[in-house]
Amino acid sequence: MITYPRQVHFHEVDAAGLVFFPHFLTWAHEAMEQLFAGLDGGYAGLITARRIGLPAVRVDSQFFSPVLFGEHVEIETTVARLGTRSMDLRYRFRRRSDGVVAAEVRHTVVSTDLVRVVSTDMPADVRAVAEQHLEAPE
Amino acid sequence: MITYPRQVHFHEVDAAGLVFFPHFLTWAHEAMEQLFAGLDGGYAGLITARRIGLPAVRVDSQFFSPVLFGEHVEIETTVARLGTRSMDLRYRFRRRSDGVVAAEVRHTVVSTDLVRVVSTDMPADVRAVAEQHLEAPE
Amino acid sequence: MITYPRQVHFHEVDAAGLVFFPHFLTWAHEAMEQLFAGLDGGYAGLITARRIGLPAVRVDSQFFSPVLFGEHVEIETTVARLGTRSMDLRYRFRRRSDGVVAAEVRHTVVSTDLVRVVSTDMPADVRAVAEQHLEAPE
Amino acid sequence: MITYPRQVHFHEVDAAGLVFFPHFLTWAHEAMEQLFAGLDGGYAGLITARRIGLPAVRVDSQFFSPVLFGEHVEIETTVARLGTRSMDLRYRFRRRSDGVVAAEVRHTVVSTDLVRVVSTDMPADVRAVAEQHLEAPE
Repeated sequence: MITYPRQVHFHEVDAAGLVFFPHFLTWAHEAMEQLFAGLDGGYAGLITARRIGLPAVRVDSQFFSPVLFGEHVEIETTVARLGTRSMDLRYRFRRRSDGVVAAEVRHTVVSTDLVRVVSTDMPADVRAVAEQHLEAPE
Repeated sequence: MITYPRQVHFHEVDAAGLVFFPHFLTWAHEAMEQLFAGLDGGYAGLITARRIGLPAVRVDSQFFSPVLFGEHVEIETTVARLGTRSMDLRYRFRRRSDGVVAAEVRHTVVSTDLVRVVSTDMPADVRAVAEQHLEAPE
Repeated sequence: MITYPRQVHFHEVDAAGLVFFPHFLTWAHEAMEQLFAGLDGGYAGLITARRIGLPAVRVDSQFFSPVLFGEHVEIETTVARLGTRSMDLRYRFRRRSDGVVAAEVRHTVVSTDLVRVVSTDMPADVRAVAEQHLEAPE
Repeated sequence: MITYPRQVHFHEVDAAGLVFFPHFLTWAHEAMEQLFAGLDGGYAGLITARRIGLPAVRVDSQFFSPVLFGEHVEIETTVARLGTRSMDLRYRFRRRSDGVVAAEVRHTVVSTDLVRVVSTDMPADVRAVAEQHLEAPE
């Protein structure tokens, strides 16, 4: 598990005064960028130099409790399932003010050759990072 | 079912050249705003004058096929389930270029008193709109 | 002049309850996409097939009056200056509710070869569209 | 001067592969939130508890050099002008990779009573922060 701290910014709430729910997915993606930051060239190098991407095929999100402007969340990222070409990332959004998990996102990505736009085996270094953060079997 | 046409804008793709997946949820919310546009004062009036909101508690998304800059999608919105205080909206994102459903989102919202931040029975006019677009039982 | 109608969406206001000011620039860009929609392949074709872009080098914005959720604006787009490789677009954001110009943006773009990332003469068809919407000299 | 480090995220580039220019203004606002983070209750407290805001009335931006995905910028924030009810913030966006200032934004804000939506004298603690970062007269 790694933890990505994220502050709620002024523009990330909606007209109801709560964090607009799609932003949780944006933050999840930022947390994934952080997870893979240690790759040679970082996550950006994977995309732009090596032309391998991790597009989403399924994203399931639950929102348990509202998050407001000025709040900080700690995004706890793990790998819930690891296959040859795909994996499920899990993100828990814990409010810093009270420690409550306000939301949880499960994000299935497929290792993809961005030039030919077809799935491809996960590169060894990507897989190694994923293994390091794989959840223990229950 | 109502259909909300949406163009992919220049800034809605990511570094891999595909629509950034959280934007599908933003578009889904825009489609919901359109669904309830006929309320007195529109969806905005519901939120800002009547102080009733429809925050998401669960959102499940599937992405079947990429969507690129310059594409148009038709977002087909229906109500998949209607309860007293909550409902499930379903959005199908159909590419205009080939008619393919590129993504599907199921969005569970709870009728909420935004002043006290507690669930509340769905107002009659909101419910009437939802009933009008309720999917036929299979 | 062309007019691009734009609704303020639920997520486009900030914690102060007003449209977050950078969104006016996003809307300006959407209006520019509409301005050039009639090109062969549209604005998207210019970028992705012909690999010519119009990146901003200067953007000056004035905000005269707030815009709220539920408001509609009419974005009036003209070309204020037309050079060989650059031009200034002007956008006036008129509130539909009262006809007031709530904001004005002046946007200087440079015709750019996106492969070599150097400026290049404006293509003839881009220039023809710009000329059609050029403001009359005062 | 304070410095706000900001990474370019995966979704912040556009179809031309460059940071979408309105995001520089979003980052500027994030830098302003950091500037005022030391207020009692932070910038969020100013907005949501004290109901004082700093809406923009003018924003002038210059873009000198492109910024790409994977880049980091250091946003150097100063106060270029300080009045009784308004001030000009200046942001320089310095690329970490080569030290070049890629963009500069000048942002005029007006101290505003968000309840009555009228300008109001800048609160003493806001002013004290601004004075601390005021540019030396040339």
